[in-house]
Amino acid sequence: MALPSQSEDFPAWYQEVVRQSELAESALGRGSMVIKPYGFALWEAIQAAFDRRIKATGHSNVYFPLLIPYSLLQREADHVEGFAPEVAVVTHAGGSELEEPYAIRPTSETIIWATVGRWLQSWRDLPLLLNQWCNVVRWELRPRLFLRTTEFLWQEGHTAHETEAEAWRETRMILRSVYQRVAERELMLPVVVGRKTASERFAGAVETLSMQAGTSHYLGQNFSRAYDVRYTGRDGAEEFPHTTSWGVSTRLVGALVMAHGDDQGLRLPPSIAPYQTVIVPIYRSDEERELVLGEAERAARQLRRRRVRVHVDDRDQHRPGYKFNEWELKGVPLRVELGPRDIAAGQATVFRRDLATKEVVPLAELGSIARELLPDIQRGLFEDARRFRDEHTYTPTTWDEMRELLSSASGFVVAGWCGDEACEARVKEETKATIRCLPIRRERTDGSCLVCGRPAAERAYWAQAY
Amino acid sequence: MALPSQSEDFPAWYQEVVRQSELAESALGRGSMVIKPYGFALWEAIQAAFDRRIKATGHSNVYFPLLIPYSLLQREADHVEGFAPEVAVVTHAGGSELEEPYAIRPTSETIIWATVGRWLQSWRDLPLLLNQWCNVVRWELRPRLFLRTTEFLWQEGHTAHETEAEAWRETRMILRSVYQRVAERELMLPVVVGRKTASERFAGAVETLSMQAGTSHYLGQNFSRAYDVRYTGRDGAEEFPHTTSWGVSTRLVGALVMAHGDDQGLRLPPSIAPYQTVIVPIYRSDEERELVLGEAERAARQLRRRRVRVHVDDRDQHRPGYKFNEWELKGVPLRVELGPRDIAAGQATVFRRDLATKEVVPLAELGSIARELLPDIQRGLFEDARRFRDEHTYTPTTWDEMRELLSSASGFVVAGWCGDEACEARVKEETKATIRCLPIRRERTDGSCLVCGRPAAERAYWAQAY
Repeated sequence: MALPSQSEDFPAWYQEVVRQSELAESALGRGSMVIKPYGFALWEAIQAAFDRRIKATGHSNVYFPLLIPYSLLQREADHVEGFAPEVAVVTHAGGSELEEPYAIRPTSETIIWATVGRWLQSWRDLPLLLNQWCNVVRWELRPRLFLRTTEFLWQEGHTAHETEAEAWRETRMILRSVYQRVAERELMLPVVVGRKTASERFAGAVETLSMQAGTSHYLGQNFSRAYDVRYTGRDGAEEFPHTTSWGVSTRLVGALVMAHGDDQGLRLPPSIAPYQTVIVPIYRSDEERELVLGEAERAARQLRRRRVRVHVDDRDQHRPGYKFNEWELKGVPLRVELGPRDIAAGQATVFRRDLATKEVVPLAELGSIARELLPDIQRGLFEDARRFRDEHTYTPTTWDEMRELLSSASGFVVAGWCGDEACEARVKEETKATIRCLPIRRERTDGSCLVCGRPAAERAYWAQAY
Repeated sequence: MALPSQSEDFPAWYQEVVRQSELAESALGRGSMVIKPYGFALWEAIQAAFDRRIKATGHSNVYFPLLIPYSLLQREADHVEGFAPEVAVVTHAGGSELEEPYAIRPTSETIIWATVGRWLQSWRDLPLLLNQWCNVVRWELRPRLFLRTTEFLWQEGHTAHETEAEAWRETRMILRSVYQRVAERELMLPVVVGRKTASERFAGAVETLSMQAGTSHYLGQNFSRAYDVRYTGRDGAEEFPHTTSWGVSTRLVGALVMAHGDDQGLRLPPSIAPYQTVIVPIYRSDEERELVLGEAERAARQLRRRRVRVHVDDRDQHRPGYKFNEWELKGVPLRVELGPRDIAAGQATVFRRDLATKEVVPLAELGSIARELLPDIQRGLFEDARRFRDEHTYTPTTWDEMRELLSSASGFVVAGWCGDEACEARVKEETKATIRCLPIRRERTDGSCLVCGRPAAERAYWAQAY
């Protein structure tokens, strides 16, 4: 079935491309999702890329419980206020009603800091650099596959430090050297990084830094005080550590689909594509079949020797045209078409998914050609995505123009902002758009706030939440 | 703090060794556990070993929801009867009471077969070979770290097949070629594999195969009928597939601790040890410190070039003796002790954890020596564990002797069994022991059932559940 046009109906295109490419589908249960084999292989590749960087920057993986005694959630006031409306609550277990209910973790600051206090004796035990890969639940009223689901998979990092400066460095390092780096070099997503405004901050944070699908919070001493986490400092006095937390989730899969997809389906960066190349054999008789499959397997071995992840699509029940469409939809970077005439001529046809171009190449050079093309496709996807973002970043000069752009166009609107929450609230009310982020270092501007006309304190990036 | 003696108080030894080696600790919340960095690194290595084999045998990873609409759980009668008493139930979410409660998955057959039906059209879509790594919750009244926890981590495989024979082959293949193989070759656990008796079977299964810390179930058409999963067969008729499910969990970490540990702590197989070698530098002055740490880093590089996972313990606040104890407790296969005199003599002392022996070796040959010792330690742990198991396997000839052994000794009791559930129940009542497994192929015996005196139908392995 043909996909809806991306430019005409982006939400319909998104839903259909996720479904038809077999990444995921809706499940029974409110806002639930099943991640199918192709989607999960993609998530595993993304996960591995982040996990490597998280470990390389000194963090250890751990696992804390799913179920949090409800009273524990209530100790940090802002935190419970922020999360209580989204929490799922276990009231019965083991055949009877529980004396105290449990919350299913919406995030794990509470259970972690209530536990980890015991691990800290002195400043020598700091920094404490923990991470966990797990599922969390936040009741979702407007679910959308990958982007907003009641349950999602993520990593959540939790760290404790001696000083405010050190915790701040960690908060920024994670955003820049882990999240932005993996996003831009492996997922090929050009990201906008920045600060959240007070109204969009993580519940309990002093400051939240973010990029499109990841956030990094400086939590000050809010959680260490609430959960009474103390250590003996260098001078012998008892201190509360400064903590951070940070996470990326399966939402990234949605970001990837949106940033690279086109009207024919997904386009996956070779670095994380489950298959980097698919070989489609073309035959009309059993004799041809044997010949072509034999040669396809030889070609696959040639590619595997060059460390290309390759799949031979030898299904009998589908014709080549059907397979071409399917692998285009699934975003496989390279497709090799191989028939009896190609074999006789010692050649194969290579289709590049990113440019939709075909090229006839010597069969013997398939491995080296794939090794050249894949990095080129990888870079090209980043350039395409950056160009698209730049073309969809607008700088209105009046409030009318800004309102019009935010209501009709997709993309970023960059405009001066006075810093007043009232102006932020007015924009949200009139256009549903919010400030997605503020540049990490305030970008001074001579202009004025387009909403109220007062002098702008800094430039802000506004957009509709998708 | 010294560990309790393993032979004098095994349960106390187990709890202390898990805690002191920093694998895990109890958490807030009934039967909950925190897996700490060292324990989680061990679990990741175990997980990777199983994941490789599961993928190599053609299975794809997927992810299904944590929360299962409660009514769904009720459709397979035996299944709900078996699991209902252990289920945790979510009744409130998003700030209000739910119309229908959700069960937190105790296992995922119900949600998977209720979903996957839509993916199956014809016999060409079979076999369906799925696996997921996730957390599950089963309310636990007698928790014990790793062995029985309310929440645990596991993989659960779920497959569907055209024929009974094929599903049976899968059930056995998983037990033998995945579970037993990884257990015996990577975890170095000599396992006893076999069938479960009817009373110990998985709720909803036709037959359950097991080894100490893994089970593989042939489910017949019980779940495909209950969840109406149908496909068009080769002859055009609608059929219900035959399904299997199988799982190993964090319980394996407990099995590993019990099988290889001794009075000094853990002993880890090199294949899955987070660190295969730890270098402990010995110095008394700042000058010596600089010299020794420099040389320790050189030695570490030499070991890394030989693909040995090595850690230099350069903590200043602890003395060498403290570090020796700690790494013995943590089961690191090799310890290298390096001081100024060693360096002057171009040598180092290598301590083997498994045999508790020390050897002085040339510093320049550390890499090649470690490469020789590690496989030797790996094999040795298996031999030790097998010898221990054989020495603790008893073959009583009378009911009095059997009862005495089951009540007092730890290990297996192998005895003829008539096949009657009444005898099985009597043994459980009088000794708390159950039939852990029956050999996969019935082992005929001329003897009689030691409980009732009637002719034995086969030999059974009895033991106390730990």
